[in-house]
Amino acid sequence: MNLPVHATLADAGEFGLIAELVRRFPQGADVLVGPGDDAAVLEMPDGRVVVSTDLHVDSRHFRRDWMSASDIGHKVAAANLSDLNAMGGRATALTVGLAAPADLPVAWALELAEGIAEECAIVGASVVGGDLTAGDQVVLAVTALGSVAGAPVLRSGARPGDVLALAGRQGWAAGGLAVLARGFRSPRKLVEAYQRPAPPYPEGAVALEHGATSMIDVSDGLLADVGHLAEASGVAIDVASDSFEIAEPLQAVGAALGADPLRFVLTGGDDHPLVATFPAGQVPERWTTIGTVSEGSGVTVDGTTYDGPTGHTHF
Amino acid sequence: MNLPVHATLADAGEFGLIAELVRRFPQGADVLVGPGDDAAVLEMPDGRVVVSTDLHVDSRHFRRDWMSASDIGHKVAAANLSDLNAMGGRATALTVGLAAPADLPVAWALELAEGIAEECAIVGASVVGGDLTAGDQVVLAVTALGSVAGAPVLRSGARPGDVLALAGRQGWAAGGLAVLARGFRSPRKLVEAYQRPAPPYPEGAVALEHGATSMIDVSDGLLADVGHLAEASGVAIDVASDSFEIAEPLQAVGAALGADPLRFVLTGGDDHPLVATFPAGQVPERWTTIGTVSEGSGVTVDGTTYDGPTGHTHF
Repeated sequence: MNLPVHATLADAGEFGLIAELVRRFPQGADVLVGPGDDAAVLEMPDGRVVVSTDLHVDSRHFRRDWMSASDIGHKVAAANLSDLNAMGGRATALTVGLAAPADLPVAWALELAEGIAEECAIVGASVVGGDLTAGDQVVLAVTALGSVAGAPVLRSGARPGDVLALAGRQGWAAGGLAVLARGFRSPRKLVEAYQRPAPPYPEGAVALEHGATSMIDVSDGLLADVGHLAEASGVAIDVASDSFEIAEPLQAVGAALGADPLRFVLTGGDDHPLVATFPAGQVPERWTTIGTVSEGSGVTVDGTTYDGPTGHTHF
Repeated sequence: MNLPVHATLADAGEFGLIAELVRRFPQGADVLVGPGDDAAVLEMPDGRVVVSTDLHVDSRHFRRDWMSASDIGHKVAAANLSDLNAMGGRATALTVGLAAPADLPVAWALELAEGIAEECAIVGASVVGGDLTAGDQVVLAVTALGSVAGAPVLRSGARPGDVLALAGRQGWAAGGLAVLARGFRSPRKLVEAYQRPAPPYPEGAVALEHGATSMIDVSDGLLADVGHLAEASGVAIDVASDSFEIAEPLQAVGAALGADPLRFVLTGGDDHPLVATFPAGQVPERWTTIGTVSEGSGVTVDGTTYDGPTGHTHF
């Protein structure tokens, strides 16, 4: 496709653009039928498939003025790959639907595809299909498919006496978002954490191997998502605020904005770390124990109900 | 959830509404983990999964003033179930993402879910997961997962000497759309065909058993979609216009609008019949032979290039 630098989706047309997008998606050996037919066909050797779908809406889940197209590609792919991580599984394929205004630059869509492909390469997943259509705003629909070696780790298995543990950085994206919202661009590490999450991909399977009794990835806010574990498991969970090491850039942002940096850690989303419960003594290396499970219901911090919103809600 | 009759998504909140939606989706025996966790888990006994994703955008793929929420549910589910039909497969599960303005009535979303569930019930598929988020316009992202008994029927296997055949009604939805676009509501059969497609679900697997060499479902327009078969297979396909019986309501609409009703059949989309190529003599019962495959490229009608647009494009 030979198009001018500023070509839009309307200039390229649906089928020309799809061909260019597909070129950016290498296909793994487990892809029996890749993009371009009515459906894709994948090998699922253990006779099961793990599947999760997310929508990502412009100006709500991402901001095109705060993130490059590549960043957005990384971010939307990471969110879905992380959902399978949170089951103790691994994503092997993604489908991606893109609704976009006709005046969206082709270059933006291609860079988006490259970001998605790069994030998928981290875990060895292939983008096997999707859809492209006109819409009033940019909406990305991502579905991840994959496998899990053994019984998936659900939200519902936490038991009194278990401990709560965290793998991956938490609060950084919220710190970065706070920085961007005030018109700043630094500390860069936080801004980059917001732009490109770094989910602890191998740790979902590690948690499964270590007998995790429940698990979730933190996408809406740590306390909110721990709340989902408590509710699904019918237990009470207490988070110990002194268990978190507040990273230096978060301390700096807290000081600059006059905010308690612990708030980013407890209520921030978008980092996609894993939080799981384990029988005492079974917490894997690279996980930090951050709380305890007991009989009862609800989530507390240091034994007390948390004051304020615990995470993001969509309506 | 006890909500007033005119409650909106904003009144119900994300989690309350999700719980109500999930209640409308019965789960089949092959669903190991259903809605409510980070991902769903499904049995895929033959060690493969067939998957297809479509986006459906308000005012582009459906009109809320021309169709009930239940109709839209049927229509978006049918479009994806049909994609698996076109591989010779059967859908066993759907995921559904819904982006919608906060003022969308809860009742509309619940009726949508019921329509999706009813369409899924026809083929025995379960709605196993999804996502709900705020957006400027209603966008539905549907992913179908399923299985195929044997080698999937691709678009690329048509060979010179094959015949082209059609299963299911074609042109009815386009006739219904033409009627609605002029402010009429009858012939009712055509309007209903537009509102609720009736894909020939069992016929995809039948075609596979009969040795279909290529197959596609007609979603954008018969000639356009036959064009995809010709291109992917590297063959020429000629469609015989006298092979179609023009149904009485299509004749009536053609007469009323001063249009050739054959145009609805040749270029209409949205009915989701199947069109496939077979070795001569292997066309299954309930399929109508409508053309021939030869060496060359492109699609012709009665040996001549068709004059005019052959189907719908999105940009």
